[in-house]
Amino acid sequence: MKIARVRVDGLVSTAKVDGDRVHLTTGSVFAPGEETGVSHALSGVTFLPPTDPTKIVAIGVNYRDHAGTRPAPVEPQPFLKSPSSLIGADQPILLPADAQNAHMEAEVVAVIGKRGRDLAEDQVDAHVLGYTAGNDVSERDWQQADLQWWRAKSSDTFTTAGPWIDTSLRPESIEVVGLINGREQQASNTDMLIHSIRACIARISRYMTLEEGDLVYTGTPGTTGRIQAGDVCEVRVGGIVLRNTVADR
Amino acid sequence: MKIARVRVDGLVSTAKVDGDRVHLTTGSVFAPGEETGVSHALSGVTFLPPTDPTKIVAIGVNYRDHAGTRPAPVEPQPFLKSPSSLIGADQPILLPADAQNAHMEAEVVAVIGKRGRDLAEDQVDAHVLGYTAGNDVSERDWQQADLQWWRAKSSDTFTTAGPWIDTSLRPESIEVVGLINGREQQASNTDMLIHSIRACIARISRYMTLEEGDLVYTGTPGTTGRIQAGDVCEVRVGGIVLRNTVADR
Repeated sequence: MKIARVRVDGLVSTAKVDGDRVHLTTGSVFAPGEETGVSHALSGVTFLPPTDPTKIVAIGVNYRDHAGTRPAPVEPQPFLKSPSSLIGADQPILLPADAQNAHMEAEVVAVIGKRGRDLAEDQVDAHVLGYTAGNDVSERDWQQADLQWWRAKSSDTFTTAGPWIDTSLRPESIEVVGLINGREQQASNTDMLIHSIRACIARISRYMTLEEGDLVYTGTPGTTGRIQAGDVCEVRVGGIVLRNTVADR
Repeated sequence: MKIARVRVDGLVSTAKVDGDRVHLTTGSVFAPGEETGVSHALSGVTFLPPTDPTKIVAIGVNYRDHAGTRPAPVEPQPFLKSPSSLIGADQPILLPADAQNAHMEAEVVAVIGKRGRDLAEDQVDAHVLGYTAGNDVSERDWQQADLQWWRAKSSDTFTTAGPWIDTSLRPESIEVVGLINGREQQASNTDMLIHSIRACIARISRYMTLEEGDLVYTGTPGTTGRIQAGDVCEVRVGGIVLRNTVADR
C-alpha cells in the first residue's frame, strides 16, 4: 500500500496512492480507514511530509562507499534532526545566505508505525509502517566548524520526506538513487549498508523510545553533490520519487 | 507569574503557583485564562514538563568556568535534545545499564512563548514566556565515543524541566545552582555566560524557527558531578527548585 498525507482545498487528509490518482480515506496514515469515494489526480494535491514526527533520527557514515577513508563504525552512529526542518515533496529547500557548501543526501527513510523501545532486530519490522524517500540536506562547512550538527542538518527546510510511504518495501533490499538536475550523483541499495535498517532501529530504541510517526534516515551512499539555488534534487527510493527545488532563503 | 502544567486525578490542567498552592486555570501556559476556583497544595499535584516541546535546543560550553582549558566559542554552540527524553519534576532519571559515567548539568531553561525566526537580540524577550530549571543529563563516555551526542544527551529521562515557569525572571541575571544529595556541586549566574541568553536564542533563530513551547537549555556552569542510582539531583534557578532522583533503568 502507498499511503500519504495530502492537502486538498486547504484540508489535510490521509490518502491511498494508486497509479496517478490519490483516494482520500477516513483515517490516519497509521490506520487509513475506508476510502471516502473522493479521488484526485496526483497533480491536484499537495503532499505533506508523510507524518508529523516527534523526532527525526538519522544514521551517519552507514555506507562503505560514503565512509571513504574513515573506518566503518562498529555500532550505528545516530544523530538528531529537528522536526522544524522537515518539508514535504515539491517544497523548496531554502539555503541561508551563509550556507555556501550545502549537499543533498539521498536516503531511505523508515517510518515508525508503533511506539516501542528496547526492540530486538527481529521485532523492528512490526514497528515500521513502511519506507519513504528522504533528503538529509547537509552544510559541510558547518558540519566541520560547529561543536555539533545543529544548523548543518536542521536548518529550516533541510529535511525532506515523501511524497508517500510504501508499506510493501523490504528493508534488506531497497534501491536508493540521488540525482541533481537529472544527473545521477548517488546510487546504491540498502543491501550495501554497514548497519542494516533493523540493526539501526534496534540500536536507537535501546536508548530512545520510538514514537508513532518518528522518522529514521538510514544513511546516504557514495559521494554527495553540492546544491545551490536553481538546482532540482531528486531522491528515488524503491518506486518513490521525491523532488525538491533549491532556492536562496 | 509562576505557571505550570499539572496532573490532578488523571486530568492535565494549567495552574498558577502561589506560595504552597496551585490554582487551576482555564487556558494553556501560554494564555493561562481565568482561575477555575479549584486549588490544591503543591504536594497534591504532579508537575508535568512545563510544555510539550516540538524541539529542545541546548547550548554547549557557555560558562567560562565550565569550558576549562577549551577556548570560549566565538559563536553560541547549540545542539539538539530529543523531546522523548523530557521528564518533569520529581520523575526519576533512569540510567541504562551501560551508562557508567552520567553527570547532571544544572541549567537555566528559556521557554519559547511565541513562534519566531531571524530574531534580533532585542526581539528575543517578546518571544520568551519565562524561565524554568533544567537538568541536561549527560553521559560523558558516550559524548566522547559517539559521532554525535544522541544517547549521551537524549536517552529517555535525560532531560528534566520544571516544576514551573517563572515569567518574572530577567535573563541577564538568574542564579543557577546544582546540588547532588544536597551538596552544592555547581553555582553561578547567567551574568557569567559566555553568550547571553538573548544572543543564543537569536543565533538559533537564524537557522531554525522556534515554536511555541520549545525549550532552550542555556548552558551549565563549573564542574559537573557524576550521578548514580540513589542520588538526588536538585537544580535551583531563581526561586525554582527542580528535584529528580536517579535510578537504574
